[in-house]
Amino acid sequence: MTVETEALSQPWIKIEALVTNDDASALVNFLETLSASETARSISRLSPTIQGQLLLLLEPQEAADLLYELHEEQAADLIEEVTPREAAAIIHEMNSDDRADLLSDLEQNEADAILQVMDLEEAEEARQLMEYPKDSAGGLMMTEFLAFPGNHTVEKFLEDLQINRDRYSDFDVQYTFITLEDKTLVGVLSLRNMLWAPRNQLLEKGMIANPIAVGAMASLDDLINLFDEHDFLGIPVVDEAGRIIGIVQRDVVREATEHRSSDSFLKASGIVGGEELRSMSLWLRARRRLSWLSINIGLNIVAASVIAFYQDTLASVIALAVFLPIISDMSGCSGNQAVAVSIRELTLGLIKPFEIVRVFFKEISIGIINGAVLGFMLGLVAFIWQGNPYLGLVVGGALMVNTIVAVCLGGLIPLVLQRFGKDPALASGPLLTTVTDLCGFFFALSFATLSLPLLTN
Amino acid sequence: MTVETEALSQPWIKIEALVTNDDASALVNFLETLSASETARSISRLSPTIQGQLLLLLEPQEAADLLYELHEEQAADLIEEVTPREAAAIIHEMNSDDRADLLSDLEQNEADAILQVMDLEEAEEARQLMEYPKDSAGGLMMTEFLAFPGNHTVEKFLEDLQINRDRYSDFDVQYTFITLEDKTLVGVLSLRNMLWAPRNQLLEKGMIANPIAVGAMASLDDLINLFDEHDFLGIPVVDEAGRIIGIVQRDVVREATEHRSSDSFLKASGIVGGEELRSMSLWLRARRRLSWLSINIGLNIVAASVIAFYQDTLASVIALAVFLPIISDMSGCSGNQAVAVSIRELTLGLIKPFEIVRVFFKEISIGIINGAVLGFMLGLVAFIWQGNPYLGLVVGGALMVNTIVAVCLGGLIPLVLQRFGKDPALASGPLLTTVTDLCGFFFALSFATLSLPLLTN
Repeated sequence: MTVETEALSQPWIKIEALVTNDDASALVNFLETLSASETARSISRLSPTIQGQLLLLLEPQEAADLLYELHEEQAADLIEEVTPREAAAIIHEMNSDDRADLLSDLEQNEADAILQVMDLEEAEEARQLMEYPKDSAGGLMMTEFLAFPGNHTVEKFLEDLQINRDRYSDFDVQYTFITLEDKTLVGVLSLRNMLWAPRNQLLEKGMIANPIAVGAMASLDDLINLFDEHDFLGIPVVDEAGRIIGIVQRDVVREATEHRSSDSFLKASGIVGGEELRSMSLWLRARRRLSWLSINIGLNIVAASVIAFYQDTLASVIALAVFLPIISDMSGCSGNQAVAVSIRELTLGLIKPFEIVRVFFKEISIGIINGAVLGFMLGLVAFIWQGNPYLGLVVGGALMVNTIVAVCLGGLIPLVLQRFGKDPALASGPLLTTVTDLCGFFFALSFATLSLPLLTN
Repeated sequence: MTVETEALSQPWIKIEALVTNDDASALVNFLETLSASETARSISRLSPTIQGQLLLLLEPQEAADLLYELHEEQAADLIEEVTPREAAAIIHEMNSDDRADLLSDLEQNEADAILQVMDLEEAEEARQLMEYPKDSAGGLMMTEFLAFPGNHTVEKFLEDLQINRDRYSDFDVQYTFITLEDKTLVGVLSLRNMLWAPRNQLLEKGMIANPIAVGAMASLDDLINLFDEHDFLGIPVVDEAGRIIGIVQRDVVREATEHRSSDSFLKASGIVGGEELRSMSLWLRARRRLSWLSINIGLNIVAASVIAFYQDTLASVIALAVFLPIISDMSGCSGNQAVAVSIRELTLGLIKPFEIVRVFFKEISIGIINGAVLGFMLGLVAFIWQGNPYLGLVVGGALMVNTIVAVCLGGLIPLVLQRFGKDPALASGPLLTTVTDLCGFFFALSFATLSLPLLTN
């Protein structure tokens, strides 16, 4: 492999060489040739020391641009490789909302150390933003927006816009807000309408009065709803007194929604405590995964202990041991389908946590159909294998009954967890499989015990 | 419960009454008071007949607005309740991209019936758009955009914009594209810069020449990458000859990404063949879930058949039957964590499908640590319960070895599936659990067979 093809398939080798040679301009040029995902992948392959040197080699603005291209957790990981003072210089170049997000992703003591050396005003603002829940309007808003008094003319407004072009380059300027002196929001102007507005017209003439706005504690669901209903690119956020404090952009809301979906997937798969990337330390990864597994093994032991009570039955009909794991696994599968549908419907707002009865009836009918089909299939296998129709009945019957239980429970558990303020994606799976394992073993073994004479013929 | 509070908690009761009374204006007013998610939830509670009557009671534009508020699958469901001609009138009011998306979500014959009665040009365009893969630039683009020749003045452009204000209201007008007569893309102008451009300036003076553009077959990942790197609100799509054919908006790309994430979650949970909403018919839901479950029960039976080979060992050490489901379930859990991390890293572009070796080494180290811890825990329980240290060694050893296998396989399976063009989210779980069940039963029972004299003391 030549050096050039290596640079293409493993760009981090070239990056490491450039960093080691302190060749800042060549580094910047090379990074520009990489796509965002190539950049992310390359950074993840560098050692922490090289990562730190890389950040320092770049100008703060270049470093901030690099962080934008990375995934959140990766950016947080990277910024921890430089001193708080160096980090503060880079963070200074970011937007208010990205700044607060990045700081929230850091360990508490790391974030505090950086906040202490940041510009006082910036640090104060970041602290305030960090206090809002991450998925609230306050947590998602950016504090850079245009606000003008209504008695300005269009001419004066356009002049200001042109003069401050550079400063406004990071602003969301799709909208201009019209405020009173104390920043109370009274109207909004879309940039588009300014194109043909007479230059001597007062801003308040063309504005839409009393625009839709949200409070800082508005939830992600509220925001999704608003953006679904209206064609806006951004919605202003106001405090209790009606003063504008920020703007939430449509794009940011979508991003947060995407984050929540992938989060559900990870949590349901037992990846807890935040995203896991393979560039993270082995111990952190092993510990996080274990924290979830060790709860699960406890629950598993509890469920399987039912089997111990029926050892005599099992000893008489040893073939049952083949079917116990199948019943446990299949019930888990059926139940998890219902869990996924409930979590999805909750996310889409198609179901409310109190609609237990509706979900129960919608699921029990599926449980009966699918339970009957699966029970029949498994029962038939048992009958053919052992030549005993009663074994088929016991095994198939247990799977059928347990499928019904699993499907109903699977549908309801996320609703109940949500109602009690717990995260359905995280806890539904372990709760479900514990109960369905326990019930499945109980049904199979108690049915077998009741019909023992027929099975041991 | 009074009628008013009922209308609040169950708005569909009021909707149904208004539809039955043919009270169109009251219906429109009432729908406007509902949030998007309340609307979606309410529609899902109406019978198909009422749903059809509701759509017909609204003006086509109102009906199109209603469809926008709904979730994709739900909108497709709803439009099937009216005749193709009525559907075509509603679809006529939508944007080109939403039109194609809705038609793609319908059953083939339903879509064909509607296309046949649509405006010829519209139908032709929709057919073309439907040919692009859904997650490609062509599938995501909208064909409404502004294009002007470069020798127009700013004045003339603004005049056109103001005259056609209504027609352009659905357009993405953040950018204006400068094209040659044959639509070849030569430049782009941001609306923002037009604010302060001299009115008599030619458009080509202020444009950015040779703007970034993508081909219609560019993938969602390509688009995510581009939007990550650049601050654009939209990217033009061009054909092979460089003629502009549409624009992909940042927001639409985010939406598609969100869709993919929730899709992974559903597929990994065994919800296949598209989203399942509880408003769908029982038979469709049962059949779709069963299609996945019946493959799984087959795989489960294959895996559990290993147990049948070791019936004698099991009969001698019946306590083993308690541990088999635990080993199977725990290995599945450990493996699924690795699956989730791989799917996520693939999505983020942090790993490429050929990087088998890297993933193997990253996972085997976790497998050894977590396998040792979990094996020790389960071994200890077995030892304490039966007072036999060898049983502890057999059970704990089997879980440890199988955890290592499960974690490595879980990490690799998604990469291999992706490499062969299969969907990792869909197939990884069943593949993984089949192999790990099989191995888990084999390890536990073969270890036990080898040490049988020590276990039966």
